[in-house]
Amino acid sequence: MKTKLQEWMIASIGRSIHAVRMNLIILQPLEVDAENCAVLSDERAQHIRKVLKAEVGKELKIGLLNGPLGIGTVQTLENQTVELSCIFKEEMPPKPRIDLLLAMPRPKVLKRMWAQLAALGVGRIVLLRAEKVERYYFDSHVVEPGFYNKLLIEGLQQACCTRLPDVQVEPLFKPFVEDRLECEFSNHWKLLADPSGEKRLRNFQPLSSFAKAPADLREKSRRILLAIGPEGGWTSYEREMLKDRGFELIGMGDRILRTDTATMGLLSVLNELFGSDR
Amino acid sequence: MKTKLQEWMIASIGRSIHAVRMNLIILQPLEVDAENCAVLSDERAQHIRKVLKAEVGKELKIGLLNGPLGIGTVQTLENQTVELSCIFKEEMPPKPRIDLLLAMPRPKVLKRMWAQLAALGVGRIVLLRAEKVERYYFDSHVVEPGFYNKLLIEGLQQACCTRLPDVQVEPLFKPFVEDRLECEFSNHWKLLADPSGEKRLRNFQPLSSFAKAPADLREKSRRILLAIGPEGGWTSYEREMLKDRGFELIGMGDRILRTDTATMGLLSVLNELFGSDR
Repeated sequence: MKTKLQEWMIASIGRSIHAVRMNLIILQPLEVDAENCAVLSDERAQHIRKVLKAEVGKELKIGLLNGPLGIGTVQTLENQTVELSCIFKEEMPPKPRIDLLLAMPRPKVLKRMWAQLAALGVGRIVLLRAEKVERYYFDSHVVEPGFYNKLLIEGLQQACCTRLPDVQVEPLFKPFVEDRLECEFSNHWKLLADPSGEKRLRNFQPLSSFAKAPADLREKSRRILLAIGPEGGWTSYEREMLKDRGFELIGMGDRILRTDTATMGLLSVLNELFGSDR
Repeated sequence: MKTKLQEWMIASIGRSIHAVRMNLIILQPLEVDAENCAVLSDERAQHIRKVLKAEVGKELKIGLLNGPLGIGTVQTLENQTVELSCIFKEEMPPKPRIDLLLAMPRPKVLKRMWAQLAALGVGRIVLLRAEKVERYYFDSHVVEPGFYNKLLIEGLQQACCTRLPDVQVEPLFKPFVEDRLECEFSNHWKLLADPSGEKRLRNFQPLSSFAKAPADLREKSRRILLAIGPEGGWTSYEREMLKDRGFELIGMGDRILRTDTATMGLLSVLNELFGSDR
C-alpha cells in the first residue's frame, strides 16, 4: 500500500528526467518487488531505451533512493516499459557531511540551485528568513516538496548519488535560532560565510591536519553546518545571534559573489577539504 | 577619437546593468576626461539615481576597466545624466592567476557561465573544440565578443573587479594543442580535471606549503591553467595529447557534476588554495 507522498515521489522521479544527464537510474524502494525486479514505464524507461539504447542483458547503474547503489540488468523491453533485475550493494553511501543554513534566496535563484545542491551533496538544507529576505519568497512554489524533490532527484541522478537532502523551511528567524538551532545542530562545526570574515578556510588549523587524517577518522568526524546570508547580507543583530551560538566567521576573499555562486563555491571548497568521498 | 570597438564597449557597459547587483561602477578609460571627470547617461546613471539613490557629494565605488579601483564623487545629477569626479588608486589589481582551457560547452550553458567566470576571476578563457563538442556550438552568438563582453562586465561589476578576462575561441583541437598550447602557456602549472584523476587538489604537496607561504611569494608564483572537458569527457586521444604537454590529472571525487558546476567548483577551490587575494 503506497501513501500519497510515496505515489507522488515515484511519479516525480519519472517526470524529472527530461533533458537531464541521467548517470544513475534512481528507484523508489516500493518500485522494487520481492524478487528484486522493477518495471519502469516513465521517462526513465524512455531514457534507457532511447538515450542509453539498452538491449536485453545490458547492465545499468541504479540506486535506491536514500539507499545503496547497484546494478540493474535489463530483462525485457516492451513498448514503453523496461523490466530490470536489480542487485544492490551491501554498504550504504555515507550521508554528505555538510548541512546548509541558507537565508532564503529569491525564488528564481533557488529554483536553479536545487539540482546543483543535491549534486554537490548536502545532508540537510534549512531555508531561513532573515531581515533582508522578502516574506513573499516563502509563498513561492519553489519551496513546495512537489517542486523541489523533483529537482533534487535530477541532481542525484546526474551526480550518481542516492541521498536526498532533507529540506526544512523556517519562515521565522528568531524562534528558530533561539530555540532550535543549538539543539538540532548541537555537534556541528558551524561556519558563517560573511564579508567581515577574515579567516579563510585554507588557513584553518584543524583543516590541514584533518585532510591528512586517515579516511576512517574523517568519516567519524563532526558534521559541518555552513550558514550563507541573503544578497544584502545578514544584519549585525543576526550575525551576533549566530556568533553567540558558536558560528565562526569565514571570508571568501575580496570578490562579492552572487548567493548561488558563493554557495556552490563554498560547498566545493568544503567538499574538497573535508569531504568523505575519495 | 573612439574606435568602433571602443564605442561598442562603452555602450555595452551601459546596457549591462539591468537587474544586476552593481557593487562597482565600471568606467571605460575613454569615458574619463583630462580633469578626471566622467559623465554617465545610461543604465549606470539610472542605477546611481534609482538604486543607490545618490545625491550630490555621494561617494561611489568605481573602477576603470582593466585598470585600478577608485572613488567617484557625484558632482551633478540632471535628468538622465550623472557627473562623477573620479580618483583612482595608484596600484593595479592583480590579474587573476587562473586561466581556463574549457571544452566548448553547449551555448545555453556557456551563456549562464560568462558573468560567473568573470566574478570568480579568470585571466584568460580558451574555448576549445573537442571530439564530444558539436561543431555548431561555435556558430552561436554566445561566442561573439559583443555578447560575452556584456556579461563578463556584469560579472565584474557584481564582484567589484576590473580585470576583463581575455577570451580566445579555438575551433580546432589538434592545431591548437600541437602548435600553440605549450608556447602560449609555457610557464603554467597545468591541471586536467578528469574522472580518471586520482590525485585531489587537497593532497598536492606544493599546495599545503603554498597556502602557508607569505603573500608576496604567492604573488610571484606560477600561473595555473585548468582544463575542463566536455559533458561526455575527453577522448583518450585528447587526454593523452594534453598529458604529453604537461597536464597533471586531478579528480573531484565520486560525484559527476555538470560542466558549469564543476568549473565554478574547481575555480572556487583553486582560488581558495592558491588565490592572490587576501
